Amino acid sequence: MTERTDALIVFTPSGKRGRFPLGTPVLTAARSLGVDIDSVCGGRAICGRCQITVGEGEFAKHGITSAVDHLSAFSKVEERYDKLRGLASGRRLSCQTQLLADVVIDVPAESQVHRQVIRKAAEVRDIEMDPATRLYYIEVEQADMHKPSSDLERVYRALAEQWAVRDLTCNLAIIASLQAALKKGEWKITCAVNSRVAGGGKELVAIWPGFHDRIFGLAVDVGSTTVAAHLANLTSGDVVASAGIMNPQIRFGEDLMSRVSYVMMNPGGEKEMTAAIREAMNTLAAQVATQAGIELSDILEIVLVGNPVMHHLFLGIDPTELGGAPFALATGLAITCPARELDLKLNPGAQAYVLPCIAGHVGADAAGVVLSEAPQDSDEIILAVDVGTNAEIILGSKARLLACSSPTGPAFEGAQISCGQRAAPGAIERIRIDPVTLEPRFRVIGSELWSDEPGFDAAVAATGVTGICGSGIIEVIAEMYLAGIINQDGLVDGGMAAVSPRVRAHGRTFTYVVRDGEPLISITQNDVRAIQLAKAALYAGVRLLMDKLGLEQVDRIRLAGAFGSHIDVKYAMILGLIPDCALEHVSSAGNAAGTGARIALLNKGARDEIEAVVRRIEKIETAVEPKFQQHFVEAMAIPHKTAPYVNLSKVVTLPPIKEIQTTDDSGGERRKRRRG
Amino acid sequence: MTERTDALIVFTPSGKRGRFPLGTPVLTAARSLGVDIDSVCGGRAICGRCQITVGEGEFAKHGITSAVDHLSAFSKVEERYDKLRGLASGRRLSCQTQLLADVVIDVPAESQVHRQVIRKAAEVRDIEMDPATRLYYIEVEQADMHKPSSDLERVYRALAEQWAVRDLTCNLAIIASLQAALKKGEWKITCAVNSRVAGGGKELVAIWPGFHDRIFGLAVDVGSTTVAAHLANLTSGDVVASAGIMNPQIRFGEDLMSRVSYVMMNPGGEKEMTAAIREAMNTLAAQVATQAGIELSDILEIVLVGNPVMHHLFLGIDPTELGGAPFALATGLAITCPARELDLKLNPGAQAYVLPCIAGHVGADAAGVVLSEAPQDSDEIILAVDVGTNAEIILGSKARLLACSSPTGPAFEGAQISCGQRAAPGAIERIRIDPVTLEPRFRVIGSELWSDEPGFDAAVAATGVTGICGSGIIEVIAEMYLAGIINQDGLVDGGMAAVSPRVRAHGRTFTYVVRDGEPLISITQNDVRAIQLAKAALYAGVRLLMDKLGLEQVDRIRLAGAFGSHIDVKYAMILGLIPDCALEHVSSAGNAAGTGARIALLNKGARDEIEAVVRRIEKIETAVEPKFQQHFVEAMAIPHKTAPYVNLSKVVTLPPIKEIQTTDDSGGERRKRRRG
Repeated sequence: MTERTDALIVFTPSGKRGRFPLGTPVLTAARSLGVDIDSVCGGRAICGRCQITVGEGEFAKHGITSAVDHLSAFSKVEERYDKLRGLASGRRLSCQTQLLADVVIDVPAESQVHRQVIRKAAEVRDIEMDPATRLYYIEVEQADMHKPSSDLERVYRALAEQWAVRDLTCNLAIIASLQAALKKGEWKITCAVNSRVAGGGKELVAIWPGFHDRIFGLAVDVGSTTVAAHLANLTSGDVVASAGIMNPQIRFGEDLMSRVSYVMMNPGGEKEMTAAIREAMNTLAAQVATQAGIELSDILEIVLVGNPVMHHLFLGIDPTELGGAPFALATGLAITCPARELDLKLNPGAQAYVLPCIAGHVGADAAGVVLSEAPQDSDEIILAVDVGTNAEIILGSKARLLACSSPTGPAFEGAQISCGQRAAPGAIERIRIDPVTLEPRFRVIGSELWSDEPGFDAAVAATGVTGICGSGIIEVIAEMYLAGIINQDGLVDGGMAAVSPRVRAHGRTFTYVVRDGEPLISITQNDVRAIQLAKAALYAGVRLLMDKLGLEQVDRIRLAGAFGSHIDVKYAMILGLIPDCALEHVSSAGNAAGTGARIALLNKGARDEIEAVVRRIEKIETAVEPKFQQHFVEAMAIPHKTAPYVNLSKVVTLPPIKEIQTTDDSGGERRKRRRG
Repeated sequence: MTERTDALIVFTPSGKRGRFPLGTPVLTAARSLGVDIDSVCGGRAICGRCQITVGEGEFAKHGITSAVDHLSAFSKVEERYDKLRGLASGRRLSCQTQLLADVVIDVPAESQVHRQVIRKAAEVRDIEMDPATRLYYIEVEQADMHKPSSDLERVYRALAEQWAVRDLTCNLAIIASLQAALKKGEWKITCAVNSRVAGGGKELVAIWPGFHDRIFGLAVDVGSTTVAAHLANLTSGDVVASAGIMNPQIRFGEDLMSRVSYVMMNPGGEKEMTAAIREAMNTLAAQVATQAGIELSDILEIVLVGNPVMHHLFLGIDPTELGGAPFALATGLAITCPARELDLKLNPGAQAYVLPCIAGHVGADAAGVVLSEAPQDSDEIILAVDVGTNAEIILGSKARLLACSSPTGPAFEGAQISCGQRAAPGAIERIRIDPVTLEPRFRVIGSELWSDEPGFDAAVAATGVTGICGSGIIEVIAEMYLAGIINQDGLVDGGMAAVSPRVRAHGRTFTYVVRDGEPLISITQNDVRAIQLAKAALYAGVRLLMDKLGLEQVDRIRLAGAFGSHIDVKYAMILGLIPDCALEHVSSAGNAAGTGARIALLNKGARDEIEAVVRRIEKIETAVEPKFQQHFVEAMAIPHKTAPYVNLSKVVTLPPIKEIQTTDDSGGERRKRRRG
């Protein structure tokens, strides 16, 4: 029997297999089979990205007779790598390991380019790594008078020959730094190539002398109030730092419309706001870089989402047209451009990507929600709602997807509520009202204690109890309804003043006092009306999209954004913010817009995907839909008249209602409903 | 016989023909046949670019029976256009003229997109118009709440539907100005699209409200001493203004190598020089714009050529590596980038194109010469020489093309010559020496009179006679040779002092005095040596390339650049600057580098062409070629020992030589050759 000159190699988990001549490096075999093994140094035992293990237990399964010397012995080069950077027991560098006999090779997750980044429990799907920017370590031919050619041409040739990376463009900053880098790195440099720059081409965006393996990207959600950034490693996908910063545009106007007004009143005012937000972005980038202990020049990408007004202001576009009908965006298309054109001080070659906007009131943040929640991939009907000053509503499934924006106003954010405030320490966020005594117990942000627990006063001494935040308002109105303080029409029942001194006359209406003291925290009739208007707007928007799809209920509801993350979905249902849906299928999506930005940062295909999905989303403008008004009026009631199918008994255990006769101040009789 | 419902239309000069339904607009018929008729407004009778005439005399030739009413009558719309902008007699707007019967239509040259721009007599070929930037007038759908979409998307749709222009990118500045332009233009705008931006895509680079039909481009030759710009209309190709400016880098060093030295001695000095040249470029652009009466924002393109050091400094690249072996360019590839990245204050969307460099000493200016002289298209062997501090030499034909640079030094520019000076008023540029009396007669720049003509002194009173410029030096040395003042080895014959007092002792050598007075203008032995060295270097470079091609002579010689334009080719031949070639095939190419820039400006295909040609040019580095030294030494003689075939009798009528015995200062005997 002649000796075989080749051997079988099987890779797991892919199952890819093939025969190769004895002595073939495992990395070479993997590449020729299309097995996903990472490498930055191109087989030079520098980067350590190509680690593998021998799949010991797998031999029999693949019909291989175990061989002792199936691979070349641990080499000097691997020993040196182990000494310098550490190699876990059993691990080999596939570039340094040669095939000697049939073998099963296991590629661990961290050695794969397209590995999965596990998302948090609240999130829908894991992210597959496929970043636009990748690193390539190359050895460049030295300049030679006998074969005159420019340094850039030899760099391009090295990228083509050593990595099959071709058809590059290159910015002038790189060219200007090239010769110094080649000199310093002794003709060895690491190149960062972004394969999704403006126009769809590939660009050599950064170079470093010698070997460099740390590149990062920023995913940013530009909110009207806060700007939140996550810094992610572009190789592992790990978020290495996160930070938030107040949007400095607040000094030009608290909410979106007041900022648009500022521009209308102060021509050129958009330039001030653009400069302010870009400066804040640079501050934020510096913060997360410091947090993670990296250089700003290691940041090669930034992906941004934001509502249309923030989107326009960040990009330097006058948002005036968004302030009135027909609410036309200057552009809704995704933007790909050098980050320096946005005055961002990252790596000079860093590229920015801004997700597409869906419509005049449904911005790139909503596109981020779509990317995160992926209704376009779902067989179930998904309703995703992101509540801010406007509620952005996405409804649909694989088959058809609709979006609209509904003018909820800022009540859900605590504005226009007499004791409302932003979610900050001291704000009431949870509340329960005893249906018999009408006594409340509550919790404030910054303490885990309920107000009737010992130590509460001490715990909140530093901040005090200063107001009620958005999620607290939802709970207090819902609890007031459950306690009979307000009726289905939202009227504060003055008769309840006889039951508890917490219900007090306030002009011609009544008020419920949550907390006596300084400040006095109470819910007025106007507060209830403001929440009714907001929730009616939200519900009407949802209902309008359901009409378009001919739906009476949805399969799954995802509540995105700060408000959506903090409210108790049970109360959202009691108030009738959202349509009928099994409670276990209603959940918070966290900062889905920001997650969408992170997905687009780590996976360039997701950019193509969201651009395509946004194109086919049907955009509904609530302002021109006659049925919107009708739904709005009908949705004012609590929970709401058009949703008799919201069976509260599914949601909370309600005590039986009994009627109480009382006499009100004017001497008339009032009927009271009391539970208990 | 049934009446025909269609008619034959024949276009001249293309000869394209087809049948179309009666009533078809002539422009529509032209388009469907692929006849080259321009239009910016898309058939709206605004731009007047689509004018045609009826080819009256052509009917019979094309077999058409003359018909009286072959076209619709002159319409109200044409009348209005005629009133507003004027329509020459017999001209029609093809967009407003309908086909009624068989007809021959003549498309005048100025209505063709791809018309020819006639070049000057000195130039090789006409330029076919095919600019990268074109204008498209569009009517954009208004924003509509019932069909929400962004303004940019509707602009893209209009470009696709009205002009079949698709797959555009767009910079942020355009997006930011879009809504205001649409408002001002009442949903009608003119778009400029550059179809050759970085990465090879198409970009919407500028917009104007309403109709706009004036766009321009700059072709610039960045020389070490002067920067010359031509402003060309991007539609007609006409040069509408030209200007030159001193290169302000002169304050950092007179010649290239002293500027490179400045950078070596002053780290970061390249940044100063980059800023200086870019500022000068902006000044120059403003000058030509004012000259032409246009706005800087009407300039949409700039194409640049320059030698490698100028190229690097303009692009912001440290030129240090060009100062020593191996003379590696940072990049030799063509550069396409937004002009704003070069700090140029043209239209914000203006694009820059820099021609490729050929090698470390053969720059983008030499590539411009190639584009202008087109040896790559020639069956004949063409030698193109551009003389500056280095001589850039291109040799070859369709089959094979070589390039090298030869270190002539600055002698040909008047530097290193005792009485040398730049070509400026007061400089001697023409000279004749009487072979009998040795008396010179000359002309200076700024006057048409010879020095022995009446009125000469008055004519030069303002400037004086200040020195000898480069072309003057060639003539004086050649005339000194013809008059026997110097011999074949370049030695100034002291014996001639006996013939004329103009030959004077000067230390241990002799000098020929051209003009007594203040300043004294004379040619020293050192001056002769400097020219010998320069011409030997030039000739050796040429000879080296001829060796590579196995040639003993060339078919055609083109002398480019300021020096090449001003020297009398006859004297170049006498001195042996250039190899043997029929005198009538030696000519000046003018500023061929600048012409190359203009070709690349007006024809985007020329950019692809020069990039491809440069790739295949064989780059020869004279410094590593052993034969270069040998050729150099042999070429020191006048004309030169390796070129005995230069038959001077073909060039000038030479009197017979007679020998004269004289005695020199040291009492020894010298033989003298005298003609006459």
